[in-house]
Amino acid sequence: MENISIGQYDLVYNAFSFAFATLAAATIFFWLSRSEVAPQYKTALTITGLVTFIAAYHYLRIFESWQASYDVINGSVAASGYAFNEAYRYVDWLLTVPLLLIELILVMGLGRAETTSRATRLGLLAALMIILGYPGEIATTNGARLLWGCLSMIPFLFIVYELFVGLSKSIAAQPSDARGLISAARYVVVGSWAFYPVVYFAGAIGLAGGDSLVVIQVGYTISDITAKAVFGVLIFMIAQRKSAPYFSALNVAGKPV
Amino acid sequence: MENISIGQYDLVYNAFSFAFATLAAATIFFWLSRSEVAPQYKTALTITGLVTFIAAYHYLRIFESWQASYDVINGSVAASGYAFNEAYRYVDWLLTVPLLLIELILVMGLGRAETTSRATRLGLLAALMIILGYPGEIATTNGARLLWGCLSMIPFLFIVYELFVGLSKSIAAQPSDARGLISAARYVVVGSWAFYPVVYFAGAIGLAGGDSLVVIQVGYTISDITAKAVFGVLIFMIAQRKSAPYFSALNVAGKPV
Repeated sequence: MENISIGQYDLVYNAFSFAFATLAAATIFFWLSRSEVAPQYKTALTITGLVTFIAAYHYLRIFESWQASYDVINGSVAASGYAFNEAYRYVDWLLTVPLLLIELILVMGLGRAETTSRATRLGLLAALMIILGYPGEIATTNGARLLWGCLSMIPFLFIVYELFVGLSKSIAAQPSDARGLISAARYVVVGSWAFYPVVYFAGAIGLAGGDSLVVIQVGYTISDITAKAVFGVLIFMIAQRKSAPYFSALNVAGKPV
Repeated sequence: MENISIGQYDLVYNAFSFAFATLAAATIFFWLSRSEVAPQYKTALTITGLVTFIAAYHYLRIFESWQASYDVINGSVAASGYAFNEAYRYVDWLLTVPLLLIELILVMGLGRAETTSRATRLGLLAALMIILGYPGEIATTNGARLLWGCLSMIPFLFIVYELFVGLSKSIAAQPSDARGLISAARYVVVGSWAFYPVVYFAGAIGLAGGDSLVVIQVGYTISDITAKAVFGVLIFMIAQRKSAPYFSALNVAGKPV
């Protein structure tokens, strides 16, 4: 592992603990909130909570792996000899990135055929994006890293096209008070991914050493919290607004939530 | 770590364990109580439970960090060389302080636009207050500590203004049996924060050594339990009183809960 200062070690340590707490709390929030949306949106919230649950699990593992990779005593930090397992992130993304795109499709409440075809296409593209990125992550040469990175960009561009062109007609057909949030959710998910290529090509663009390690780990953490917990809150708000007519029709509570 | 006696070590140790038990129990109470309030107050209780859940997680970590930072054997206590991680508190507050102000707004049941604007403003002010406090907490000079402490007071004063002036008209419009509790909840939250500056400026006002460490840790623990669990019970009572007409209208059980 890179040589880092005690301040750098603590910053990453606390960022991982913060991510675990945030993602675990978000998971429970999404699952409890299932009772506050109409039946057709419950699956969207179930999956929103699955994404943060899977990410919380991986942040706990990442946190433990970070602790194990350094010996910290009497204010000094030294590499312990145990490797920090970066691969937890890929395992996490392979599961969560397809699922979080599926959340967005589910909360739109499209017809059954359109839901199946769009969710399948986005899910497979997302999985392909992650799978193609991994050989580059573990590559030892910049050439291989560049090759796999560029290959991974192909499904990424299809995802962006699908979200911003393919979905545009369906978004225009959404209820007016949910339309802005659905549109915003696309930007949150794609925007939160903007950090990943920076990290991916960190070596190629000259980022290295302890400072780079800290920027990468804290940056990934912020991106993951945004793409999963913040994005999930938007999904919840969309589901809640779209459920208002259902609860009004049930005539419970009088006033929608 | 400071030199402390076995009695001091045990007092802090038991205070942390007490805090974990209290906050974990409060969490389950708030979540189970979701079924006893009208639909529009369920989210307030979900978030009330999230606050105590996040705090319980952090007290578990703080407890373990305390244990690791001293070697206690045969009735003697010696610093182990492992640092006690005070930063868990800031990570906790960054999440919980915005959320507990949002609880208060949600339980007031204001219109959607007012809820969004007030919750956003209070949430951001609270996060800013915590973020500005942190550099002072880790500062090595009293000057830097004073500077960041004073900067952190600016969002704090805005929060107090928002709670006691901005909200006064909305509080006056609350049902008469909930109004007093909502007003009291503001005093509990702001009052429980009164201890934090005392600790923050402990060095500057001459508190130091083992006695100071014990006062600070036990004081923070009492403040956290008050601001999260006791405050949460008030939120529950407010939600329950405001739900009485809903349950009467549903005509379940005859008598409102």
